[in-house]
Amino acid sequence: MEPTQQQTTGTRLDPWVDAYAARTRGLTASQVRALFAVASRPEVVSLAGGMPFVSALPLDQIADMTARLLRERGPQALQYGSGQGDVTLREQILEVMDPVGVRAHPDDIVVTAGSQMALDLVVRVFCDPGDVVLVEAPTYVTALGVFSSYQCQVVHVPMDEQGMRPDALREAIARVRAEGRTPKLVYTIPSFHNPGGVTQGPERRAEVLDAARSNGLLLLEDDPYGLLGFDGSVPRAIRADEAEGVIYLGTFSKTIAAGLRVGWAVAPHGVREKLVLANETATLCPSNFAQLTISEYLATQPWFDQVKVFREVYRERRDALLESLDALMPPGTTWTVPAGGFYSWVTLPDGLDATAMLPRAVAALVAYVPGTGFYAGGAGGHNALRLSYCYPEPDRIREGVRRLAGVIESELEIVQTFGSPTTASSRPGPSTPTPDLA
Amino acid sequence: MEPTQQQTTGTRLDPWVDAYAARTRGLTASQVRALFAVASRPEVVSLAGGMPFVSALPLDQIADMTARLLRERGPQALQYGSGQGDVTLREQILEVMDPVGVRAHPDDIVVTAGSQMALDLVVRVFCDPGDVVLVEAPTYVTALGVFSSYQCQVVHVPMDEQGMRPDALREAIARVRAEGRTPKLVYTIPSFHNPGGVTQGPERRAEVLDAARSNGLLLLEDDPYGLLGFDGSVPRAIRADEAEGVIYLGTFSKTIAAGLRVGWAVAPHGVREKLVLANETATLCPSNFAQLTISEYLATQPWFDQVKVFREVYRERRDALLESLDALMPPGTTWTVPAGGFYSWVTLPDGLDATAMLPRAVAALVAYVPGTGFYAGGAGGHNALRLSYCYPEPDRIREGVRRLAGVIESELEIVQTFGSPTTASSRPGPSTPTPDLA
Repeated sequence: MEPTQQQTTGTRLDPWVDAYAARTRGLTASQVRALFAVASRPEVVSLAGGMPFVSALPLDQIADMTARLLRERGPQALQYGSGQGDVTLREQILEVMDPVGVRAHPDDIVVTAGSQMALDLVVRVFCDPGDVVLVEAPTYVTALGVFSSYQCQVVHVPMDEQGMRPDALREAIARVRAEGRTPKLVYTIPSFHNPGGVTQGPERRAEVLDAARSNGLLLLEDDPYGLLGFDGSVPRAIRADEAEGVIYLGTFSKTIAAGLRVGWAVAPHGVREKLVLANETATLCPSNFAQLTISEYLATQPWFDQVKVFREVYRERRDALLESLDALMPPGTTWTVPAGGFYSWVTLPDGLDATAMLPRAVAALVAYVPGTGFYAGGAGGHNALRLSYCYPEPDRIREGVRRLAGVIESELEIVQTFGSPTTASSRPGPSTPTPDLA
Repeated sequence: MEPTQQQTTGTRLDPWVDAYAARTRGLTASQVRALFAVASRPEVVSLAGGMPFVSALPLDQIADMTARLLRERGPQALQYGSGQGDVTLREQILEVMDPVGVRAHPDDIVVTAGSQMALDLVVRVFCDPGDVVLVEAPTYVTALGVFSSYQCQVVHVPMDEQGMRPDALREAIARVRAEGRTPKLVYTIPSFHNPGGVTQGPERRAEVLDAARSNGLLLLEDDPYGLLGFDGSVPRAIRADEAEGVIYLGTFSKTIAAGLRVGWAVAPHGVREKLVLANETATLCPSNFAQLTISEYLATQPWFDQVKVFREVYRERRDALLESLDALMPPGTTWTVPAGGFYSWVTLPDGLDATAMLPRAVAALVAYVPGTGFYAGGAGGHNALRLSYCYPEPDRIREGVRRLAGVIESELEIVQTFGSPTTASSRPGPSTPTPDLA
């Protein structure tokens, strides 16, 4: 059979363009997506993606363990499961959350296809179009995608070196209410922030929680990196001290493996019931194959020792990044010093634009994520970028920073000679509206 | 640490009851959910669930194959992947769709966390609140859940022994338009229908497609059972003859294993781009672990021979069901004769109500799904029920039908002696508004 016409034609008009739901206007491809296809070439040092270093896992043991699981419990692992998730795994998740201080009942947990799915379901359950979600400035890029796809309005709250500022949060909530809008959720990443690289201390957490609670708002605590503190200390989750006002999102993507796509939400009773129903509607049930693999891993492998291995891997890479930044970055460049997690947030010297600079960086064989990606509508972070140190080996990180420093220096020379190098680039919004992490 | 108060309290008021999105009004637990907890006891013959018989899989080979995959390609299998799905798997999906006649490019395919997720994403991309989806009467229960969760209105189109009636579809579209409502999608399960057990012939498919296309409506073709025809013939998919006007949903849940949660959509170019973005927002990416396991299975195992094994398993069970129904059902009971798939749709004698009868059936140690579950708002199917023959062994099926026949006979005696046995039960809607499959 010959290929039909539509397979060989290139650009085509979309006959369904008038049929899409209004919410699809919030579904837009990242402007830097095409560039990242180029940046995935092996000669490019990518400080862009947040891929965990899964090669550090004991692959032979996981292979043996998974084979045994399939032999002994194959008919269960390969079958549909419960919409709430496997009950044994939910009990084990309680143990995994013990270090962050979260106490709950297995019934309070909903297992999902990654914590991204849990985030999607929480927004689905709470947010009508136009509802306001308050988030850090900057915040996790794909959380912005979820809020946008449910037609939420996003209000960024300035951060300092301890993360979201509670005074600014209170002001933002009051302003939203004064404008007649409906604040619905406060979304925060308190530990080893993505992309900010900062961590809320215990007092800060209490203040952020109080700002949400005193305004009757639910706090959505996203905690993918909590166990990955480099000094071995684990920040106590906000959920540990408040069960009714917080939804906690956890994941195995950074402590075991991202490719399994298993995360969870811990939610108050009434919310949890709605999340289970929404989970069934979205996916019927999370994968038993992935859930039972994780359950077996937790039961038979020294999972917390492996977390310590990951910490050590990432600490060494963080150190390589920071030492290189110290040694090589031109004056006027600043960055956050992460105590855990995957990221540092870099602020460029005055006059530089990280989005405009990216093609030149990729030409110099180094990639990063421009700061605008972490602001709703790209309306902030123009002079900033995120560096990830989780995936490349330390020597590659040093080489990447050396290349990046060269690019920044070239840009600075152009600014000093000809004025701003960014005049040719489009700046979609106003300049960064808050002090943020600068 | 002591358990906190909310862990030990039973029923509690939900403090967030006023905070939920309007769409949560469509998220309601099935009325029969509690009963099914009882029905999962081993002494109950469940003809309710649609669980594939995964024990027929070559578990040892799958165990060996998965172990080898993790040893040789562990860092890929355990890592994040593409939001559109693994490219090798997408090429293999083209081969899997060859028997149903679907020709496409790997770029036209979006891999999702089960085809349920694909269905969710299609509705997310197309349906604003109030948009109308036209579906068979009856239709797949969790598709109704998706439509409801996106606040769609559902219009049921009557079926006959060839499935959805195109004359009735045209009338329904015209009526919806005359009422000022917006029809958006035609959702159909043309092969081995769930729950109807019927199959559209080639002419019927062309007529249903023409009714959608001539009205400018996208057809959403859900095809989980297409390869599971008992005489070895595979119905040609509607998508095989129309690429721009059809989204085709496929799944490995019935041909390999449901516990892997891997399905896909084949969509026109512009739609596919939106589905990929929506997929990234919902789950970041489908599981590489599950995708590569399936890819390896397709590459190294005789996957189509295994489909033939499944056909034989299900054919034998279908036969056991039909022979028992023929031998044991009281006069006035009718049922469909499925040529493939998992289900037969049973219509009870006049005066009986399948929902009201279910507790008595479970007490007699047999379970089914009442027909109302397959109608939006439970507004039809009161005198009908779905029987699944996919999971129990043939002798158990015969025993289940024997018990069910006894329950129906007892109900008939009550009707004949005292009038309707259903007067004590609540009937939430009008009686079945269409001839349907009766």
